[in-house]
Amino acid sequence: MTDARFDVLGIGSAIVDILARTDDDFLAANGMVKGTMALMTAEQSKKLYERMGPAVEISGGSAANTAVGIASLGGSPCYIGKVGADKLGEIFAHEIKAAGVDFHGGENRPTKLPSATCLILVTPDGQRTMNTFLGACTELAPADIDAERIAASRVTYIEGYQWDTPLAKQAIRKACQAAKGAKRQVALSLSDPFVVDRHRADLLALIRDDVDILFGNEDEIFSLYQAADMEGAIARLREARVLACMTRSAKGAIVFDGQATLAVDAAPVTKVVDTTGAGDLFAAGFLYGYTHGRDLTGCAKIGAVAAAEVISHMGARPEVSLKDLIAKQGL
Amino acid sequence: MTDARFDVLGIGSAIVDILARTDDDFLAANGMVKGTMALMTAEQSKKLYERMGPAVEISGGSAANTAVGIASLGGSPCYIGKVGADKLGEIFAHEIKAAGVDFHGGENRPTKLPSATCLILVTPDGQRTMNTFLGACTELAPADIDAERIAASRVTYIEGYQWDTPLAKQAIRKACQAAKGAKRQVALSLSDPFVVDRHRADLLALIRDDVDILFGNEDEIFSLYQAADMEGAIARLREARVLACMTRSAKGAIVFDGQATLAVDAAPVTKVVDTTGAGDLFAAGFLYGYTHGRDLTGCAKIGAVAAAEVISHMGARPEVSLKDLIAKQGL
Repeated sequence: MTDARFDVLGIGSAIVDILARTDDDFLAANGMVKGTMALMTAEQSKKLYERMGPAVEISGGSAANTAVGIASLGGSPCYIGKVGADKLGEIFAHEIKAAGVDFHGGENRPTKLPSATCLILVTPDGQRTMNTFLGACTELAPADIDAERIAASRVTYIEGYQWDTPLAKQAIRKACQAAKGAKRQVALSLSDPFVVDRHRADLLALIRDDVDILFGNEDEIFSLYQAADMEGAIARLREARVLACMTRSAKGAIVFDGQATLAVDAAPVTKVVDTTGAGDLFAAGFLYGYTHGRDLTGCAKIGAVAAAEVISHMGARPEVSLKDLIAKQGL
Repeated sequence: MTDARFDVLGIGSAIVDILARTDDDFLAANGMVKGTMALMTAEQSKKLYERMGPAVEISGGSAANTAVGIASLGGSPCYIGKVGADKLGEIFAHEIKAAGVDFHGGENRPTKLPSATCLILVTPDGQRTMNTFLGACTELAPADIDAERIAASRVTYIEGYQWDTPLAKQAIRKACQAAKGAKRQVALSLSDPFVVDRHRADLLALIRDDVDILFGNEDEIFSLYQAADMEGAIARLREARVLACMTRSAKGAIVFDGQATLAVDAAPVTKVVDTTGAGDLFAAGFLYGYTHGRDLTGCAKIGAVAAAEVISHMGARPEVSLKDLIAKQGL
């Protein structure tokens, strides 16, 4: 195996987040399930936006947040996602490139669809509830997957969200083949409990065939295996022979290496402002450690610190250098 | 004089700010004068954006920030500005309406130009340096000025920035006539020392003929009158027979009522993060007090509290309810 140019290549939906504070009544009145992601048409998104309060726009997208986190830690990330030929596409591209990520926005196969947006409602408890209009992301296709770059990446990291668009699903298959063909590893984030519910069979098959590292929170992993408790989930993870990271919010994270579990505490946070990106940044920290020779406890600790930083402010992109942050903590 | 539906009607450039942290070397390398505003072509703006680091997008525009501040204080503001038929225009419109401002974006006379953006570089001292691409704002014209709304507003508040576009200048003249015809007051913000330098004769004529309340910082007011010191500036303000507010950053503000000056301290700030909007929010607080029967000291104190809130975070829009903030301080 040759040297890798990139630590991690992320593939995902390239989204600009529009974040507004709200309360639980607004979620209920608009039929939202707190803490989850719902897909919206352009029309639905427009109507919800009109009802939302003042917001800020911050680039997001799950795997993109992870790629930016790895750059902030000092690693070498690459990202493939699809933006529209519009101002939000320019903004998304600027942000990810300015953060130090090698970005492929599908410019060689331009789409006429607008760039994706996610209307994120943040409740006083810091929990985020997401409403995504995928737009240009629905045209991410196998032709956008650069097999050479995947072969040059230690880990190819995929969002579960991609299963919601048929072309992207095909793109992911091509990416997995390219990674496996180059003897590289594949990581999967389960993304959302409803995504898992919609695509359980596909995701289980992918995990069986291609996935080396699995990320998910308790809800997602329990849903994946329809497990009633932690023992049941661990038993199924053992069969799956994956390295699994189960994030548990304030309870920290559990890493299962195929044999045993190890638990890592959540890093301290003065105030949880907005949980958007918590899982993405945990994955960033873990994968940075993993591709830089740290042991699993070290990987998970870096993940916990990165997640703690991102939930301390609005938006899913780090506001300070994560490299400095982990250095200060001796990680 | 009939009852006013609006406390303040603002007229200005409707801009989405793109804010990035930088250092003094970047300003120097790009030929910027710290603390000022420079106009850019679309091409210049694009090139600067490519060189800038990661940014956040927050709606801005000087008079728009003032209108939003007045809404946050519990007042009734109206705003006239011109946005493009694009995503940033939608975002600008959403923000200002969601904040509680009666907004007129020139939809009846649509423009094909893109919405305006301001690339704002924030240095570690919190100072902001602005680079504006005016786009759609250059098409704000007399036909966009709704004389009925101006007659229904206690104060019409105008940005000095408007003198940089010939059509907007004509629009301002129409607005002043409408205000004066309805026996309402006109307030002017000087906006920027270079704006004052470019349009001194025009601004002096407007102040002489139409302006009742003048806002500016020391640099701007000294430049307006080419005054060497405070005594010289005050002497000229006395001749101009305006109520004048001179903001002085950490030194607070001086209000001159045509006879005497009164000084108000700056409100305390733990850390100055980004001075964008400091003057706009001082004006918001002052005009809220002014249209709600407070004495001049009270007006200036509310202005100081509003300015202190906005410089404690990135962006020129308040992040908390200013109404609650002044209530807590007994204002």
